Amino acid sequence: MGAVSAVDRDRLPKQDRSRATRQRLLEAAVSCLAEHGWAGSTVSVVAERAGVSRGAAQHHFPTREDLFTAAVEYVAEERSRALRALFPQGAGGDRTAVVAALVDLYTGPMFRAALHLWVAASNEEQLRPRVTELEARVGRETHRIAVELLGADESVPGVRESVQGLLDMARGLGLANLLTDDGARRERVVAQWAGLLDEKLR
Amino acid sequence: MGAVSAVDRDRLPKQDRSRATRQRLLEAAVSCLAEHGWAGSTVSVVAERAGVSRGAAQHHFPTREDLFTAAVEYVAEERSRALRALFPQGAGGDRTAVVAALVDLYTGPMFRAALHLWVAASNEEQLRPRVTELEARVGRETHRIAVELLGADESVPGVRESVQGLLDMARGLGLANLLTDDGARRERVVAQWAGLLDEKLR
Repeated sequence: MGAVSAVDRDRLPKQDRSRATRQRLLEAAVSCLAEHGWAGSTVSVVAERAGVSRGAAQHHFPTREDLFTAAVEYVAEERSRALRALFPQGAGGDRTAVVAALVDLYTGPMFRAALHLWVAASNEEQLRPRVTELEARVGRETHRIAVELLGADESVPGVRESVQGLLDMARGLGLANLLTDDGARRERVVAQWAGLLDEKLR
Repeated sequence: MGAVSAVDRDRLPKQDRSRATRQRLLEAAVSCLAEHGWAGSTVSVVAERAGVSRGAAQHHFPTREDLFTAAVEYVAEERSRALRALFPQGAGGDRTAVVAALVDLYTGPMFRAALHLWVAASNEEQLRPRVTELEARVGRETHRIAVELLGADESVPGVRESVQGLLDMARGLGLANLLTDDGARRERVVAQWAGLLDEKLR
């Protein structure tokens, strides 16, 4: 997620410049949502943060809803990419490492941004259908990656639900980390649940 | 949480009337937070919803922060009471029923109100310390009730973390239920992890 400086930007062909502007807007939207929540996140605030004119921002994203659902979609893609990059040759059977990496997806500013969007969507009718659809898609994708990395055989009864419960736990740990640094406790919980899951998946 | 009608209210002695007004305000604050989120929840909106004058509301709760932290504290007490009421003679070893009851604490309007407050507190400096303290207290109390109802022996290594992970999963399931009715999936996940936990606690 490297930023593109103004000088570099001027050297890029038009299409690449447009793509770089879009990416800057998405990154600014994610930071803004994570730091200020939905109420404090408007297209103008994000445009200013990204160093982009309001007009240019609206060219890319006509409405606030367009901008923020695109931003969380972008987060979801970065999350998948980051998860795959951790285990480029597969996890090699180290389930504790996989569980720890999965849980890490739910802490940090990206989850925080997504959380603000979910909570806002629960009250904002304009946002709700798009965020619901996005969340379902992200959920399926995360589940698929988890099953693959854990080497889980979903034809065995209970395995699918075990993996789902693990991801629910990860989401709950993310929420517990919202107000305080919950890292030490989280590490012990992850070790314990990774063990329980490993016994089930063997 | 029965509402007190205006007629009944006039018949009550002054101290009881004051207590009833306070309770109406707390209940209105919880509904308001669950339905409209932090941005849409002010003392005036809550007072109107409760059928109480703004002055009377401010007599009970001088600031917005006072009102909403009291409201979530009230929710937490109701939650504990509801949980104990489910198993007045203890859970009698039925761990699946206990797990299902614990998870139920994290769905519905009370969890939704608390979630709005947590997310708001993550960006509102005035709210943050109070909500953090409240969340820690509620977390300890919920953990204590869970250990008691599950008949878990925390001197056994891993038991404490197993119970914590279960409550994290419950919180994650609550979050998953925010935008869509996730009840059918949740039931299967709960059954599966109740089984895994039961093996660990035996």
